[in-house]
Amino acid sequence: MRQSSSPSEALLRGLSGTPDVDAELSDHALLRALLDVEAALARAGADTGLLPASAAEEIARQCRAERYDPAALGVAAEAAGNPVVPLVRELTAAVDESARPWVHHGATSQDVLDSALSLVAVRAAGPLLRHLADAAEAAARLARTHRDTVMTARTLGQQAAPTTFGLKAAGWLVGLVEARTRLDQVRAGLPAQLGGAVGTLATYGTAGPVIVERFAAHLGLAASPLPWHTRRQPLLDLASALGGLLAATGKIALDVGLLAQTEVGEVAEAGEGRGGSSAMPHKRNPVDSVLVTAAARRGPGLVGTLFAAAAQEHERAAGGWHAEWEPLLDLVHLAGGAAARTARMLAGLDVRPQRMRANLDATGGLLLAEAVAARLAPALGRAAAHDLVRRAAGRPDFRAALLAEADLRAHLSEPDVDAALDPAGWLGSAGHLVDRALDLHRQATRSPATSAKPHREVQP
Amino acid sequence: MRQSSSPSEALLRGLSGTPDVDAELSDHALLRALLDVEAALARAGADTGLLPASAAEEIARQCRAERYDPAALGVAAEAAGNPVVPLVRELTAAVDESARPWVHHGATSQDVLDSALSLVAVRAAGPLLRHLADAAEAAARLARTHRDTVMTARTLGQQAAPTTFGLKAAGWLVGLVEARTRLDQVRAGLPAQLGGAVGTLATYGTAGPVIVERFAAHLGLAASPLPWHTRRQPLLDLASALGGLLAATGKIALDVGLLAQTEVGEVAEAGEGRGGSSAMPHKRNPVDSVLVTAAARRGPGLVGTLFAAAAQEHERAAGGWHAEWEPLLDLVHLAGGAAARTARMLAGLDVRPQRMRANLDATGGLLLAEAVAARLAPALGRAAAHDLVRRAAGRPDFRAALLAEADLRAHLSEPDVDAALDPAGWLGSAGHLVDRALDLHRQATRSPATSAKPHREVQP
Amino acid sequence: MRQSSSPSEALLRGLSGTPDVDAELSDHALLRALLDVEAALARAGADTGLLPASAAEEIARQCRAERYDPAALGVAAEAAGNPVVPLVRELTAAVDESARPWVHHGATSQDVLDSALSLVAVRAAGPLLRHLADAAEAAARLARTHRDTVMTARTLGQQAAPTTFGLKAAGWLVGLVEARTRLDQVRAGLPAQLGGAVGTLATYGTAGPVIVERFAAHLGLAASPLPWHTRRQPLLDLASALGGLLAATGKIALDVGLLAQTEVGEVAEAGEGRGGSSAMPHKRNPVDSVLVTAAARRGPGLVGTLFAAAAQEHERAAGGWHAEWEPLLDLVHLAGGAAARTARMLAGLDVRPQRMRANLDATGGLLLAEAVAARLAPALGRAAAHDLVRRAAGRPDFRAALLAEADLRAHLSEPDVDAALDPAGWLGSAGHLVDRALDLHRQATRSPATSAKPHREVQP
Amino acid sequence: MRQSSSPSEALLRGLSGTPDVDAELSDHALLRALLDVEAALARAGADTGLLPASAAEEIARQCRAERYDPAALGVAAEAAGNPVVPLVRELTAAVDESARPWVHHGATSQDVLDSALSLVAVRAAGPLLRHLADAAEAAARLARTHRDTVMTARTLGQQAAPTTFGLKAAGWLVGLVEARTRLDQVRAGLPAQLGGAVGTLATYGTAGPVIVERFAAHLGLAASPLPWHTRRQPLLDLASALGGLLAATGKIALDVGLLAQTEVGEVAEAGEGRGGSSAMPHKRNPVDSVLVTAAARRGPGLVGTLFAAAAQEHERAAGGWHAEWEPLLDLVHLAGGAAARTARMLAGLDVRPQRMRANLDATGGLLLAEAVAARLAPALGRAAAHDLVRRAAGRPDFRAALLAEADLRAHLSEPDVDAALDPAGWLGSAGHLVDRALDLHRQATRSPATSAKPHREVQP
Repeated sequence: MRQSSSPSEALLRGLSGTPDVDAELSDHALLRALLDVEAALARAGADTGLLPASAAEEIARQCRAERYDPAALGVAAEAAGNPVVPLVRELTAAVDESARPWVHHGATSQDVLDSALSLVAVRAAGPLLRHLADAAEAAARLARTHRDTVMTARTLGQQAAPTTFGLKAAGWLVGLVEARTRLDQVRAGLPAQLGGAVGTLATYGTAGPVIVERFAAHLGLAASPLPWHTRRQPLLDLASALGGLLAATGKIALDVGLLAQTEVGEVAEAGEGRGGSSAMPHKRNPVDSVLVTAAARRGPGLVGTLFAAAAQEHERAAGGWHAEWEPLLDLVHLAGGAAARTARMLAGLDVRPQRMRANLDATGGLLLAEAVAARLAPALGRAAAHDLVRRAAGRPDFRAALLAEADLRAHLSEPDVDAALDPAGWLGSAGHLVDRALDLHRQATRSPATSAKPHREVQP
Repeated sequence: MRQSSSPSEALLRGLSGTPDVDAELSDHALLRALLDVEAALARAGADTGLLPASAAEEIARQCRAERYDPAALGVAAEAAGNPVVPLVRELTAAVDESARPWVHHGATSQDVLDSALSLVAVRAAGPLLRHLADAAEAAARLARTHRDTVMTARTLGQQAAPTTFGLKAAGWLVGLVEARTRLDQVRAGLPAQLGGAVGTLATYGTAGPVIVERFAAHLGLAASPLPWHTRRQPLLDLASALGGLLAATGKIALDVGLLAQTEVGEVAEAGEGRGGSSAMPHKRNPVDSVLVTAAARRGPGLVGTLFAAAAQEHERAAGGWHAEWEPLLDLVHLAGGAAARTARMLAGLDVRPQRMRANLDATGGLLLAEAVAARLAPALGRAAAHDLVRRAAGRPDFRAALLAEADLRAHLSEPDVDAALDPAGWLGSAGHLVDRALDLHRQATRSPATSAKPHREVQP
Repeated sequence: MRQSSSPSEALLRGLSGTPDVDAELSDHALLRALLDVEAALARAGADTGLLPASAAEEIARQCRAERYDPAALGVAAEAAGNPVVPLVRELTAAVDESARPWVHHGATSQDVLDSALSLVAVRAAGPLLRHLADAAEAAARLARTHRDTVMTARTLGQQAAPTTFGLKAAGWLVGLVEARTRLDQVRAGLPAQLGGAVGTLATYGTAGPVIVERFAAHLGLAASPLPWHTRRQPLLDLASALGGLLAATGKIALDVGLLAQTEVGEVAEAGEGRGGSSAMPHKRNPVDSVLVTAAARRGPGLVGTLFAAAAQEHERAAGGWHAEWEPLLDLVHLAGGAAARTARMLAGLDVRPQRMRANLDATGGLLLAEAVAARLAPALGRAAAHDLVRRAAGRPDFRAALLAEADLRAHLSEPDVDAALDPAGWLGSAGHLVDRALDLHRQATRSPATSAKPHREVQP
Repeated sequence: MRQSSSPSEALLRGLSGTPDVDAELSDHALLRALLDVEAALARAGADTGLLPASAAEEIARQCRAERYDPAALGVAAEAAGNPVVPLVRELTAAVDESARPWVHHGATSQDVLDSALSLVAVRAAGPLLRHLADAAEAAARLARTHRDTVMTARTLGQQAAPTTFGLKAAGWLVGLVEARTRLDQVRAGLPAQLGGAVGTLATYGTAGPVIVERFAAHLGLAASPLPWHTRRQPLLDLASALGGLLAATGKIALDVGLLAQTEVGEVAEAGEGRGGSSAMPHKRNPVDSVLVTAAARRGPGLVGTLFAAAAQEHERAAGGWHAEWEPLLDLVHLAGGAAARTARMLAGLDVRPQRMRANLDATGGLLLAEAVAARLAPALGRAAAHDLVRRAAGRPDFRAALLAEADLRAHLSEPDVDAALDPAGWLGSAGHLVDRALDLHRQATRSPATSAKPHREVQP
């Protein structure tokens, strides 16, 4: 079968991804990674004297993506079941005759493709982590600015008690910080793959472990203690981190979408001609929220697929390995789109404290029933206090009903009641928790997991 | 954000799909389908006198995919959250001024994209069903040819008792027939979508239902009794059918892969320079089996994603809908690749009856223990017969041990024992079941579900 | 390992299921089904003269669940990998000596467990379909009662245009009717399993097909043309139907939860002391909506698991089969709980037309912008009409702004404008679509898929 | 609805779990955990002077699981949507009147249930990690014992080149060590949950953070910086770790199942009357492999469900939270069963070096083709060496064909050729990699992640 044409690439895929991350997932980027791996393999061999330095340099010289045609390689891949086989054939043909025996020396296709996918993931993690950092920064700004902006908290869809928009944003922030930390750790640990045909490094004699070390170093990837051809925990770590990122951004998008409902109206996405509807001029659709929500809905199935593919048999698997490639790239792609849109959505978020206050007040103080009871408890006992408050809550005007209760009036003045009904007085540790989230964010920003171990750039 | 570049399209995606099906999923094909839908909408309006026939013809005239640039539409889609909004803008600009008010008249973006995806699925089902038919035909040929080729059946990975390769192929065949029947039924029922902004068909006054009917007819799609903007059963039916297809082909690929193991060697995929390894000249990799297995592993996650996206809120959903597009196209893509490769794999399958027989004989008749006991039971009673056989089975040479049993020799001659140890005599209804599967296949071939309802081609 | 104790059975599992359906999934029910299968097997053998009628009757006599201890069987199952092996051992010990050779004659464990699970599913489908019917009836009543109750439709979370609550309920109804139809069809087609050790029916000589037919008839199950030990489409059909049911009820629950939000307040779940919160007396939690939503979220993973388990190797699989049992029962369990709670939720739904109207009016007629433009279009041309309306929509008071437009006043009077701003005048085919949904419901109620084929009760 | 009866608890669930882990997941264990949480809450309040120490002691005194009836609580849970509401009601009734106001003081149901589930997971991790340690120890023993036992490596199901059984076992070992390390880390970080009704800790005034700290300390759980009511990363970490464990054990089970195939026969599970078949006396089914494979197949769907449930809205979610409970417990349950069975399977594994050697020799040295070429390359050049070897590999007797090549005989003697054809000479770093895996295992055993932070036992 010849190479497939591109399925709805331009029309739909842009809506789930973002250009800078997707650029690292393109045919060109994968081809470049595959060739970087071949170059690193040759150099690692030369480092240990297994092959002449000149051969390594000649091989590296031909490892330039521009020389090869992804479409033709894709067609040729069909017969082998992976694109490395035809690429090695072409690379071998391209190098000087003296270097030919040393191309792909001692490696198997999976060594090259696994290492290249690690490399692609590490490279895509660059812009991805920047979008996450931007999103976190925007969430932090919202948390700081609205540290004391009261609004109604909602549980099971119902107004429940006061909170602050700052605390809501702080929760988003911690989710983003967690996602970032996990992805950063995974990035730092993604290993190169080198085991040879069956994982024994047979071709290298006893030099195997040193070559593996050098190979990983040239790629700026971690070195795995053993080949991981059919031990896929590294990919599960990556999938889990990306899935967690999608969940964290999905939660934010869900909140924004619900707060932006016409009847709630507490936030809106920044306009800039986006989300408008010519037929319905009153509408401003929360487009980023919608697209992030959509991306988040697709994460679990892909995460599940990678876990399902992970139980791989024998030394190299018949299908489990091949099932990983596209879902893994799709997860990175979706995570990129979700992170970038979350950053934009939060940076431009139109927050409406007055509407928050109005919604909070709409239930006439009922959300503060617990606060009133707490004020009464020392005098009446907790049970009696609750009974009194519950009784008042059943009447149309809660405040008036409270003031009509003699037992209450015996202990609380009208200003006391108003103080109890002030949401700002029933926020517990909200402010403190916001500050704590901002601290976490500062620490995470200061000391990223990988700061100690910068990824070297490969120089093919 | 501008349009993404294409993620690893050429290098990897060809290995999970097949060109003719993928061609129906390309940007161009989707664009064509979107425009076919706009043309059908205009014509349906003209049919009912809602708009002038000349306007409908002018609109249809501009509904040619070549006129529009998918990449530019993809970029513009970002602001709206879907590609229909910019396409309608461009189409409106392209038509004569008199026709402009009638472009996209009364429809919402989701009407157009849902209908276009139905259309795309129906069109892709053409080549997909042909591959399935080829696969079924190849399985039928194997079942017929090897109706009486004895081999060992395996349960829990262990040799268990004799069967025939014909019956194994008949099981594959029935799986393929089931997959084909389900997909054919779903194809015939895939509905057009038309509800207007909120599903009331408000713009059309009372003419809505007639327009829906005409619209569906122009597209050759089924007409749904009510808009299905947030009632996604039609897509679940499609996803289930495609998931079933992947399971059925995955089962075949798994069997082929296991039968092709070096130690089993009962089948091999056709060579033709495929699956070879220059480093390991003795290897002939079952590449199609591997790639179909990989495709089958990815089905469940995508099926799950579509079920997860299906609980959509209100009149049109914020994210659930958007989450469906790519997983749905991915499922069609994978099903196409799996069906095509299964067809090729079965058509070229190298079946080795001698090796089957050798594997069957390797356990020295032990697989026939039950058969020997059955012959003895009328004379000795079932319990005594079983005891005797079990005793003999525990010895090194089963046949010799049987003949050494006096109780057996009292009733069975040496030729009797050999007859009992002949696998061909312990096949029960295997042949009958093969014939039945072939009958089912013939019936399914004769009367496809949609034969009565050919899909009209849209003429834009 | 000895039998596990029950994980959080009472405290949590009741919240996702419903008693009458769960009763059909209990240890006792499964044990009863397993024994019904053994009895049916014996009777089918007797029907064809393979074994004495007296033996069959003796076996059937001992096939009473009360005689066996599920816990002990569970412990003994560990050594065999399934509970049929020890059950057959106990059943054999329980019958008269003369009948012993005929217990489980010619069958394999999977024949019995697959058939029993089909039986369990068919039996559970009884109450399940009744709950679905109740839910559909309740939805139909809502659709009928509120056929003309105007409310705002919402797309992407935003108020979009008028619709009716009747049409919303009609959408729910069609979803329930679809779910019911599919489940009913699947129930009617669920097959008995009988293939013997490796699917050849070897023990029965040529009588196999007749015995299979009789066996299925005794169980009131469909007869499969071939054994389906490793062809799992019947289970995929069941999983898809249950998954669709969970999506359909999940959509309803999602809508109810959103409509019940404090700020929306258009519906509430019936109180009856449910969903209350003593700490927050103003709250009435939509508990059924929450629990149905939770059940719906768990469907896709289980559906995916069954699709993932379906590609089973050789004649009987090493793990794929064993992976199906609990997910399948869990899906039936969740579907039961979702159907029962949806029925209760809809039957008791507190619908608030005034709040619906108030929410509709809150945007001051903006939702009718399209309607006004449609009225103006014949006179001004569609483009000019839209421009005028869009201009007015940008001002604070839409109605006043419209009336201030000279071009409008040249063609429309104040009453004309008010008529255009009346939501009841911009409902298109809403009423017609409601009627159509009610018709569908009536037809589905009148002619259930299985009416022609009542499931016989097994008489062990 | 009243409480459901138990679905197929005894007959099936034991086959996917293991008793000691399941005991920690039982109704009784969950009830105990819920009560431990209420006791810890009271004590944390007393620690900070919020409530009298006597009240805390009285509450703790009544927090004994024996006092409460899970079945009745389950029934009562229906009205509230979770079992904490009725439990608090009963606990309040049980304590002295003076302590009543302080029961569940300042907490919400989710605080208690989330904390209890963390506690349950931590407790179940005890036996689970012990099973994992046993499995790792057994794998280590196999790796050590068979460090130099040659066997054929298999890629894509085909014999590929020599490896050692020690290296295969070392790969299993590393997978188990990874699973153990991840689970141990997650266990150490599982947080208590305490936020009050909406996550502000409102009831506690400014004392909130201290109470949270004390509360977590009493439970021996980590303290989260912010409430995580709708930030579910801790559960995703747990789900990922358990999913990884299922993948690691699933890989081992898959390998064992394939190696135990009749035609391969390189290992068998220990007999002890397990896996036998009376009808087929020659069979010894790899029952543990089958059941672990089945458990592993169910992991991905459950992992996906937890990721899908994780995007939870607002301060406490309507359904997402409720969807987590059973899938989470199911994952722990499956992980327990898989770990215990893997430990037993590996501890008793019957390894057959002679059969391994026979299978390796069956292809007459072809697996060593690469080794022969490597020996010839220095003399002939790599290209010519490969051509020569490929030519010989195409003939029936590889060794004879090699010796018939004049170019070879010019450089290699017959003993040289035999040395090249000795698999033991083409194992590369296999032995070294085994040693490295054993080192990793020793380190992991010596310093478990949580050794520095023993989980305090709660003393209610």
